[in-house]
Amino acid sequence: MTATDKNKWNLFFKRDKFAGHAGIELESIAPGRAKVKCEVQEHHLNGVKCVHGGMLFTLADMAFAAAANSHGRLAVALNASISFVKPARGKTISAEAKEVSRSGRHAVYEVRIADENGDTVSVFQGMAYVKKEEWSL
Amino acid sequence: MTATDKNKWNLFFKRDKFAGHAGIELESIAPGRAKVKCEVQEHHLNGVKCVHGGMLFTLADMAFAAAANSHGRLAVALNASISFVKPARGKTISAEAKEVSRSGRHAVYEVRIADENGDTVSVFQGMAYVKKEEWSL
Amino acid sequence: MTATDKNKWNLFFKRDKFAGHAGIELESIAPGRAKVKCEVQEHHLNGVKCVHGGMLFTLADMAFAAAANSHGRLAVALNASISFVKPARGKTISAEAKEVSRSGRHAVYEVRIADENGDTVSVFQGMAYVKKEEWSL
Amino acid sequence: MTATDKNKWNLFFKRDKFAGHAGIELESIAPGRAKVKCEVQEHHLNGVKCVHGGMLFTLADMAFAAAANSHGRLAVALNASISFVKPARGKTISAEAKEVSRSGRHAVYEVRIADENGDTVSVFQGMAYVKKEEWSL
Repeated sequence: MTATDKNKWNLFFKRDKFAGHAGIELESIAPGRAKVKCEVQEHHLNGVKCVHGGMLFTLADMAFAAAANSHGRLAVALNASISFVKPARGKTISAEAKEVSRSGRHAVYEVRIADENGDTVSVFQGMAYVKKEEWSL
Repeated sequence: MTATDKNKWNLFFKRDKFAGHAGIELESIAPGRAKVKCEVQEHHLNGVKCVHGGMLFTLADMAFAAAANSHGRLAVALNASISFVKPARGKTISAEAKEVSRSGRHAVYEVRIADENGDTVSVFQGMAYVKKEEWSL
Repeated sequence: MTATDKNKWNLFFKRDKFAGHAGIELESIAPGRAKVKCEVQEHHLNGVKCVHGGMLFTLADMAFAAAANSHGRLAVALNASISFVKPARGKTISAEAKEVSRSGRHAVYEVRIADENGDTVSVFQGMAYVKKEEWSL
Repeated sequence: MTATDKNKWNLFFKRDKFAGHAGIELESIAPGRAKVKCEVQEHHLNGVKCVHGGMLFTLADMAFAAAANSHGRLAVALNASISFVKPARGKTISAEAKEVSRSGRHAVYEVRIADENGDTVSVFQGMAYVKKEEWSL
């Protein structure tokens, strides 16, 4: 990633207020792929002291959004499904999105959410609608 | 809802740190049903100034969690799918969960997420695993 | 449904070879809604003598397809999720699709699959992409 | 695969009447993985002459079922989601399932459905419930 790209993507994440509120950061990005991470904090937990399903979804959704927008065209989420596999352990969680398909105006991504030990805690699949316009900041 | 029940459920939501961080409140609950709501704020928005998909998911997930736990037995989310239908308009969003099925250890809920105008903005379907123990606070 | 409409929809189902192979018939259709049914036969069963998940999905998918195409514009499935709730009992199964949302080029449907007793055996949610052209036979 | 295993799995597929009706065969199986295939025939097509979504789902579901049962314990499908990416081309279709997670009584599988050219035509994600008993024929 060039310094210009880094700035562009930092701005992409900065503009996303909910991602900022949740404490999610971009780790890496390439065409069709993205990885995001987050330090687990008290306010990420649910009533049984595990990372909240909504937080895991949001983390995966940000990896999905970055990967779907990585080619330069504006992409918006149409739908997503998530399976919760096991509780997250440790102090960090990360999500990595990979493009499975991009065909016409629709693109599909698989996202793996892992905890600090590298164990898969959730699996996410999302479909995006690719708009005609380039996205800009 | 009796005053005791109201206290119990307020505590259920208070213990959920991420729900609190997101500003989600319980509006009503009955066996197999729950409704939650939220005032839309700056930190709920994504990069294009719409309510974030992660926030809509979290709202639906809380309605789902409350409905799945409404019978007294502890229930945990196994998976969920969400379709994003249109951007939310106005100052509030709400989500209403209804039990579609409860059979053995698994239960399924449909959740409708609506904006201030009452328009459906997202549709969510979730499956929970019902544990043997009663939940308590 | 007029006789003309009935003929049109019979042809819609007749053209669908897999629906025919599976023995699925249209019961009723109206704008945004459709109901299909099927007599359970030996070749619909899986290895444990229950109606096969693929068959339940196909039944729901046909209700979804009919409802999505009910307005006259050609609609194709983008994705779907299904939850298997309990085994089907009795000699018939049916699926009823309802339009949850139709906004721009995307539309969402919820489908309930029921057995002869009227018990919900599966729940399905599907998103369709609405094309510009009218469909014709 | 030993000859004994091959016989066991052939019987697994033979007992599944809907898989047989649809013409689906097992190609390979190993712990947590399975691949199935099918020759495309007239009765697999939908009204627009493409392989039917219900058929693609059924193919993926059989790969999922074989992989979920590959460890010897009986596993049943709880739910699944599928994204339809592009029409299948050529004379054969195949589906390959990989175990993403197996934790306690629940296991998750990702399935890729490909056409004769090896292009991904659909993506499937399924969750199974692992029963206590061994399965037998």
